Amino acid sequence: MRNIKLTIEYDGKNFPGWQSQPGKVSIQTEIERAIEEVTGEKVELIASGRTDAGVHALGQVANFHTNTNIEINKIPYAINSKLSKSIVVKKAEEVEERFHARYNCKLKTYRYIINHAPFPSALNRYREYHMPYELDFEAMQRAAQYFEGEHDFKAFKASGGNAKKTTVRTLTKCSVEKDGDRIIIELTGNGFLYNMVRIISGTILDVGLGKIEADKIPEIIESGVREKAGKTLPPHGLYLVSVDYQNEK
Amino acid sequence: MRNIKLTIEYDGKNFPGWQSQPGKVSIQTEIERAIEEVTGEKVELIASGRTDAGVHALGQVANFHTNTNIEINKIPYAINSKLSKSIVVKKAEEVEERFHARYNCKLKTYRYIINHAPFPSALNRYREYHMPYELDFEAMQRAAQYFEGEHDFKAFKASGGNAKKTTVRTLTKCSVEKDGDRIIIELTGNGFLYNMVRIISGTILDVGLGKIEADKIPEIIESGVREKAGKTLPPHGLYLVSVDYQNEK
Repeated sequence: MRNIKLTIEYDGKNFPGWQSQPGKVSIQTEIERAIEEVTGEKVELIASGRTDAGVHALGQVANFHTNTNIEINKIPYAINSKLSKSIVVKKAEEVEERFHARYNCKLKTYRYIINHAPFPSALNRYREYHMPYELDFEAMQRAAQYFEGEHDFKAFKASGGNAKKTTVRTLTKCSVEKDGDRIIIELTGNGFLYNMVRIISGTILDVGLGKIEADKIPEIIESGVREKAGKTLPPHGLYLVSVDYQNEK
Repeated sequence: MRNIKLTIEYDGKNFPGWQSQPGKVSIQTEIERAIEEVTGEKVELIASGRTDAGVHALGQVANFHTNTNIEINKIPYAINSKLSKSIVVKKAEEVEERFHARYNCKLKTYRYIINHAPFPSALNRYREYHMPYELDFEAMQRAAQYFEGEHDFKAFKASGGNAKKTTVRTLTKCSVEKDGDRIIIELTGNGFLYNMVRIISGTILDVGLGKIEADKIPEIIESGVREKAGKTLPPHGLYLVSVDYQNEK
């Protein structure tokens, strides 16, 4: 059987998230339906991980097994022709039988966009979080650095995950940059706990607002207490940017 | 009476355009309704010019006369509170009684965005025109230069306008730039004929596609024949960026 790896962009606005949910059309079920229409096969699409309702992806990765003989470079066009324009397959690659989009994932990069203009943007209202109040940008950058490295991120995890599993993760990057009126928070890591990016972004924002001191971040991480971290920012400012498998193709 | 100048951003996607139309909720009627709810007065909102269905604005300008005593810096918040998030008043300024957003307009800047990536963007599907085919970027830049200056733009005007009025306009800028996968066409001028930006952008794109020679542009302008110019690009890639009144405040 062939094993096909897809790279997918989607607008999370009108979906209940990646994963199939009873009675709701999820991103996963939409793409599985499109693949079935194209190949005639019912497939299971394995993503690098779920994204929540409203969260966007520039480069989600997923794989499926198939007996179709459609040429690899024609697969994106074939699947896209059966999808609404809010989901776009941007790449298809032939991968080894044993490749698994979730298990083999080495690094993921997420982006959170904060619009710091006095008024929200009409055009980007579903694409960023608006924060008009004064922010200490340097303090936000300083706070971000403390998240890099291997830490127990228990304080930055929403309830609802599996409490027995380890909450230790390694972030290779946690940066805060300006792009005009926008503040872009970017995180790269080997794994992310439930709502971890939105809670870390909310904590960095709370540092900018002066609610949390930048140099208290190590103490908050150490505490493992969710209440000491900042608020969970809303999903519509969050993007899964890319998923890296290194030499695992 | 006070005369208030507003600067407005809007997402054109769900509107039939700026202007009031029977049975349809236009951008103008939406803002006039919001102003009425805020001031208790029926006002006429005078824009720098109309925008068509689907066209976006980053900085449309409009003015209205009012007896309200709401502080000028509170006016955007008051109006925005009565509007859907697809229209945002970003600035309000007190201007002279005689200021008229259409008659006093000196320069307007429009932007047309072409996505030149192999696949369309799911997130920007209502914000740009997708063109995956090979383009001669330098030829597009060369073509653009010919549009600058004072010309009779009759060949770049859709039918439907007033045929008796002059079709001579001056473009102070017509540029083609790259921004990653995007090609950005920007025009600044003292006035624009009906669909002029979309036809000039379509002509520049046809030069990129090799359908029209860059150095034939002066001849096409000279001819005044619409059929010699390129196609009209769709509205969803077009943005009214700004309107300039110089010292006319």
